[in-house]
Amino acid sequence: MSDTISDLIDRLHREAALERPDADTPDVGIVMGSDSDLETMMTGGKRRGAYDAFVDELGFAEQTDYEDAPAERFTFETYVTSAHRTPDLMTAYAETAEDRGLEVIIAGAGGKSADLPNMTASIAYPLPVIGVPVQEKSVDSVIGMPTGAPMVAVDAGKSFNAALSAAQILARQHEPVRERLVDYHEALREDVGVVSRALHDGGTPAYRDEN
Amino acid sequence: MSDTISDLIDRLHREAALERPDADTPDVGIVMGSDSDLETMMTGGKRRGAYDAFVDELGFAEQTDYEDAPAERFTFETYVTSAHRTPDLMTAYAETAEDRGLEVIIAGAGGKSADLPNMTASIAYPLPVIGVPVQEKSVDSVIGMPTGAPMVAVDAGKSFNAALSAAQILARQHEPVRERLVDYHEALREDVGVVSRALHDGGTPAYRDEN
Amino acid sequence: MSDTISDLIDRLHREAALERPDADTPDVGIVMGSDSDLETMMTGGKRRGAYDAFVDELGFAEQTDYEDAPAERFTFETYVTSAHRTPDLMTAYAETAEDRGLEVIIAGAGGKSADLPNMTASIAYPLPVIGVPVQEKSVDSVIGMPTGAPMVAVDAGKSFNAALSAAQILARQHEPVRERLVDYHEALREDVGVVSRALHDGGTPAYRDEN
Amino acid sequence: MSDTISDLIDRLHREAALERPDADTPDVGIVMGSDSDLETMMTGGKRRGAYDAFVDELGFAEQTDYEDAPAERFTFETYVTSAHRTPDLMTAYAETAEDRGLEVIIAGAGGKSADLPNMTASIAYPLPVIGVPVQEKSVDSVIGMPTGAPMVAVDAGKSFNAALSAAQILARQHEPVRERLVDYHEALREDVGVVSRALHDGGTPAYRDEN
Amino acid sequence: MSDTISDLIDRLHREAALERPDADTPDVGIVMGSDSDLETMMTGGKRRGAYDAFVDELGFAEQTDYEDAPAERFTFETYVTSAHRTPDLMTAYAETAEDRGLEVIIAGAGGKSADLPNMTASIAYPLPVIGVPVQEKSVDSVIGMPTGAPMVAVDAGKSFNAALSAAQILARQHEPVRERLVDYHEALREDVGVVSRALHDGGTPAYRDEN
Amino acid sequence: MSDTISDLIDRLHREAALERPDADTPDVGIVMGSDSDLETMMTGGKRRGAYDAFVDELGFAEQTDYEDAPAERFTFETYVTSAHRTPDLMTAYAETAEDRGLEVIIAGAGGKSADLPNMTASIAYPLPVIGVPVQEKSVDSVIGMPTGAPMVAVDAGKSFNAALSAAQILARQHEPVRERLVDYHEALREDVGVVSRALHDGGTPAYRDEN
Amino acid sequence: MSDTISDLIDRLHREAALERPDADTPDVGIVMGSDSDLETMMTGGKRRGAYDAFVDELGFAEQTDYEDAPAERFTFETYVTSAHRTPDLMTAYAETAEDRGLEVIIAGAGGKSADLPNMTASIAYPLPVIGVPVQEKSVDSVIGMPTGAPMVAVDAGKSFNAALSAAQILARQHEPVRERLVDYHEALREDVGVVSRALHDGGTPAYRDEN
Amino acid sequence: MSDTISDLIDRLHREAALERPDADTPDVGIVMGSDSDLETMMTGGKRRGAYDAFVDELGFAEQTDYEDAPAERFTFETYVTSAHRTPDLMTAYAETAEDRGLEVIIAGAGGKSADLPNMTASIAYPLPVIGVPVQEKSVDSVIGMPTGAPMVAVDAGKSFNAALSAAQILARQHEPVRERLVDYHEALREDVGVVSRALHDGGTPAYRDEN
Repeated sequence: MSDTISDLIDRLHREAALERPDADTPDVGIVMGSDSDLETMMTGGKRRGAYDAFVDELGFAEQTDYEDAPAERFTFETYVTSAHRTPDLMTAYAETAEDRGLEVIIAGAGGKSADLPNMTASIAYPLPVIGVPVQEKSVDSVIGMPTGAPMVAVDAGKSFNAALSAAQILARQHEPVRERLVDYHEALREDVGVVSRALHDGGTPAYRDEN
Repeated sequence: MSDTISDLIDRLHREAALERPDADTPDVGIVMGSDSDLETMMTGGKRRGAYDAFVDELGFAEQTDYEDAPAERFTFETYVTSAHRTPDLMTAYAETAEDRGLEVIIAGAGGKSADLPNMTASIAYPLPVIGVPVQEKSVDSVIGMPTGAPMVAVDAGKSFNAALSAAQILARQHEPVRERLVDYHEALREDVGVVSRALHDGGTPAYRDEN
Repeated sequence: MSDTISDLIDRLHREAALERPDADTPDVGIVMGSDSDLETMMTGGKRRGAYDAFVDELGFAEQTDYEDAPAERFTFETYVTSAHRTPDLMTAYAETAEDRGLEVIIAGAGGKSADLPNMTASIAYPLPVIGVPVQEKSVDSVIGMPTGAPMVAVDAGKSFNAALSAAQILARQHEPVRERLVDYHEALREDVGVVSRALHDGGTPAYRDEN
Repeated sequence: MSDTISDLIDRLHREAALERPDADTPDVGIVMGSDSDLETMMTGGKRRGAYDAFVDELGFAEQTDYEDAPAERFTFETYVTSAHRTPDLMTAYAETAEDRGLEVIIAGAGGKSADLPNMTASIAYPLPVIGVPVQEKSVDSVIGMPTGAPMVAVDAGKSFNAALSAAQILARQHEPVRERLVDYHEALREDVGVVSRALHDGGTPAYRDEN
Repeated sequence: MSDTISDLIDRLHREAALERPDADTPDVGIVMGSDSDLETMMTGGKRRGAYDAFVDELGFAEQTDYEDAPAERFTFETYVTSAHRTPDLMTAYAETAEDRGLEVIIAGAGGKSADLPNMTASIAYPLPVIGVPVQEKSVDSVIGMPTGAPMVAVDAGKSFNAALSAAQILARQHEPVRERLVDYHEALREDVGVVSRALHDGGTPAYRDEN
Repeated sequence: MSDTISDLIDRLHREAALERPDADTPDVGIVMGSDSDLETMMTGGKRRGAYDAFVDELGFAEQTDYEDAPAERFTFETYVTSAHRTPDLMTAYAETAEDRGLEVIIAGAGGKSADLPNMTASIAYPLPVIGVPVQEKSVDSVIGMPTGAPMVAVDAGKSFNAALSAAQILARQHEPVRERLVDYHEALREDVGVVSRALHDGGTPAYRDEN
Repeated sequence: MSDTISDLIDRLHREAALERPDADTPDVGIVMGSDSDLETMMTGGKRRGAYDAFVDELGFAEQTDYEDAPAERFTFETYVTSAHRTPDLMTAYAETAEDRGLEVIIAGAGGKSADLPNMTASIAYPLPVIGVPVQEKSVDSVIGMPTGAPMVAVDAGKSFNAALSAAQILARQHEPVRERLVDYHEALREDVGVVSRALHDGGTPAYRDEN
Repeated sequence: MSDTISDLIDRLHREAALERPDADTPDVGIVMGSDSDLETMMTGGKRRGAYDAFVDELGFAEQTDYEDAPAERFTFETYVTSAHRTPDLMTAYAETAEDRGLEVIIAGAGGKSADLPNMTASIAYPLPVIGVPVQEKSVDSVIGMPTGAPMVAVDAGKSFNAALSAAQILARQHEPVRERLVDYHEALREDVGVVSRALHDGGTPAYRDEN
């Protein structure tokens, strides 16, 4: 078996066996089927992604070293694992998730057989999983979970919203996360207000020329 | 204005102003766009619904009287409100939801303009809202929230799964809910095992004749 | 709450309380979900938009200042308001529309959850609202109003036609608007005639080379 | 040529040449492509139709004899004409519509080539035409008018809403129509309120058993 | 009314009244909804069009002057006419087609309401009409003729094939057209054979580098 | 090889080698992929089929014996042949068609791989072939012929219209067929006229009760 | 963990560890996501299924007891396992498949997230897996495997064809399977021939009345 | 008839009549409808193709000369043949395939009427055929084979996977092919592992900047 896959699976099981304090483990786990999904899932694509939402808007940090948690209280971690190329790594990730301290998983995959979110939700149960269809054609495969196998989904490519939804779940227990969500939203609303007034009061041609 | 709509709006605002203890208010709010959605959203339709999941599988009770909470610790409430016929009632419901003690909302609507879940999520923010497209043709309208306006969705007609997902959110804080989710799942898995063994060991014709 | 949103809501309610003469208020209200819809809804995009129809073809003017109506008899106003980011501004716009003197609203939104036209129609009722799906994928969400909640729609991206349709409604009361519609149409038909004759009488290769 | 088609064409042109007072001519013209569309377009189908909206909810009457207008002030007339089988009758209907006193046309057709509404709108211009796709598969054909050729559409099969939209246009000039629209809507809203309260206060099982 | 449209309508009726010999009138009439369809319908677009098929492959000529027929025995003529902008010109074209000596019509239109082919077939009946959906989204509207109103269609954008199909109809009476169809096809087949042998015998990399 | 398939192939080649007079051979060949298509293709289904059009409306007869042509001048023959189960019979049918005296073929098939019409057209070339998609899901497969391989199609299930289209092709050479097409159409139009007048003059409730 | 699931997983691993002779183990493994798929996957539904193909047409037997192989040389086994409810059983099935002597797997699942065939193929690799979408809406999810993860699919609901395809793979090594495939096909072809001759020679009305 | 097509047909039949040893004939036959499919089917397109899988990953060679087999034990051959332009060449290819020593065919075609794979499978039966829809719109036509006519399909454009699937079939008899499949897969998995570890341990911004 691939050495690296084997190492990663071992690492995940080792972490699950540890009893790290909540504040030292990631709160949100982000997995995607391929690193070609990185722009859609995290940052740098046409739309802002989960990384942008967590880091720029909600004050989360990305945890990259289990031994050295970031200073920020709320964190996420990021892995690539393919349902069809590395089903064993996917299984190890999902079955250790709750024991490794994750509170919610965001899982994204593209293509028409976007099975990663659904399989992750099936194995990580009862941990909540938010599925992100990386492409429009992935929506059906992601949203169609059978009765008895819960998972929720956001719209194609909208990992930014998945991050907000994950934060909404954390906010039920953590008032600071709730406050950051509210602050983010008020800023967003103010932007709409400023645009609306500028358009109305300046008129269409002026607004168009200035923007 | 319609007297009953007006009364309901007043009631919701009154409840929001009260400081009822958490255990006395519903944990989950269920709203649907029409009472013709009742079978899909709650119970009695082709598939089992949210009512069946909450009451039969997870030990929740339906709260019908704010003054008289059920004995069960975990409860939900049920309202009909239409985005297009009673936008004011929908707004009152959503803007009072958090203050009335709800932890998560399940909102379902049918048709191609299934706006109720989306508007409810927009107004109830930062409360998490799980949208249920009541018909297949409602999926696009429900799932398509724009960036910055979070909401999660389940598959068409699967209010049963929405209830499980809502319970997964509550389970992050409430270990008893987590345990009920696990128990429910184990029973479900045992059912699959029994069926699988019977089919394999008995053979297709025998299984078919007996089932 | 966002200060600008709050100011705009106050402004709309103040205007609704005034008794301005019909000729001083806009006849048509145009709202869109985001300023990224401006090219599709108004002018400058691949297709001509509502602004082009109103200003270039039908002699309307854009009113930008409630205190200072344009000299033109027929006018429209333009706002951005998002159903999902600023539901309160959307509600204020729609519920004051008739009292502010509007005769018809054109409302456009993109995405799969294009709820702005539908919610505006629901709240501004009985004022007629013409919905414009800003993208092809917005058509279903815009057109699918439930029985009892009327709204009419045009094809995706065709705000130009929405402006003509709005003018057709105004033309029922205002003969000058009717005449401008007829003049516009005759010019359009003459264009087809000239092209048709040139193509037929010159032949395909000649026409192609010259155009 | 078919005698009856010929007679109907003559009749329409004769009516157009007369100068009947507004109150004696129908306000709304309803045309459909086939009498198999009657249930969808008018009354008796799965959904309520335009006839039900006009007669039961808004106090309109159907005018069947040009010489003998109904006592009701607001009326509609009903014809069958097929775009593909009787294009000459369709043309005669549309080109005489404004001169015969119609203020708005509701045109419905089924199938994938649902051309009747579009052709009627093209010929009856600048009279407003509301297209009704009689089947889901007719939506694209009905809504897709090219730039410069205005027509508005409602959702598949919703002739009831088309009647409300037609009344919204008439209501711009006729306060009584506006009042009837408001009254209808309030009753509709009261219905939602009563259902919502009954469901919430009685609980799901009780409501389900009683309805 | 537009002078040019009026002139063209008069011209078509004048031609219909004349008794020109068959060899002097066009055999095939080509109409399209807009000159923006010219590349798809005739020549110069991504695919070869009807002009290329008729002129380059089948030896037809385009007739541009009714008084001065080309030397070639088989000819076609080309007009633009819009179903929704110039329904009167479309009607005149179709109702004079048979009397003007046309044997078959090729009619193309784009958009979702691609009514030109269908209306032309309805009015020109019993002349055969081949509809060309100019865009993929025009296919449904073009192909969906109701029972009793015959028209045949080709695939989206394939006016080249429509020309071949028109020639197949003419070939039933005119052996020379049949022979040209056969010659064209043999050349096409030889091309496939040459490519196939070169690919097989040279191998994939060599073929790819040379082509 | 199947004896019956072998016999049929021999029979077709034998007929092709004979020089029967035109009046003794079928004018139209009808093939379908399975006898389960018979109701859709010929008669007895929800819609009227090709048999109904030819026999009831246009005075054609079905020829069942090559040695004993019916008295009627215009005839059709009917075979079942499957593209995927009997490609050799399909090939024999198509490659002998022109030599056996057919002037046009109507070929219908269901399913998503509805290859029979397309393969028949490819092999029978340059004979015109009208494809009938037996199911809605067969439309794409039937209509999508590549450039250079002509075939025309009608809408799903409309073999009745395919028969009319085939007759339109025959009518170019045979005035009696043209006259029957015109007579059929006039009767159809009269039906619309009678229905339209009855509905208008009697009013909706009366018409509905009587029909 | 569910006792029965646990037992089945143990049984599969035990079988994999044994060195049973080829002739004693099943050649084809059939898995489906739920026993509600039984009619589609095996026998008794609207279409004939894999059981019918294997047992009635190809002389295979169903093996139900690993200790007691059927007398027939070629056999299949049948299990239910759900990707989303029992991912561990699915994994055990797939990872033991090759060691248990299977030569090919047929895996069917319904719904929009039909992940069972794809996950089974990913884990059982390099064993060939034929996916059967149990419903039309399962096709995309089943067929969409990413590059590097091979699996082949048949059309929705066509487990009968999947059985033939599995036999085609076995036939590469086993001439008797090849002969049974040929015999089956010849009988099928003879059926078409008989039907075709009866329809042609008897004529449509006679055939219809007798069938 | 086209000389080259005729030559190729003769060549195929000649080869089929020879008794060449297995090791000297191609194991896999690849056919495509046009040389414009070459990038998708073989190599050089956006995705890697069948050529890349066979030559780069599995050690196969392309056989271009029947008299001079490559040194490699496992080989494939490549032809272009069009179902609609050269049905006779397609038939000759498929009916000689088994006798020419092929073990499996990969057949790809584009467009909506992608009949080549289906017809090849029908004629080459009982040889297994793997269909490759060259475009997304070709999927339905390729996958939709009727009951009794087996063929399997891969996803649109994924000829790379078709090659792996063909090798999976060969691997049932040839252990070396099985080993190459396993080696290829392990390398693929190692790639995922390396990417996953780099992303997690380096963090999103670092990974993004370096890749």
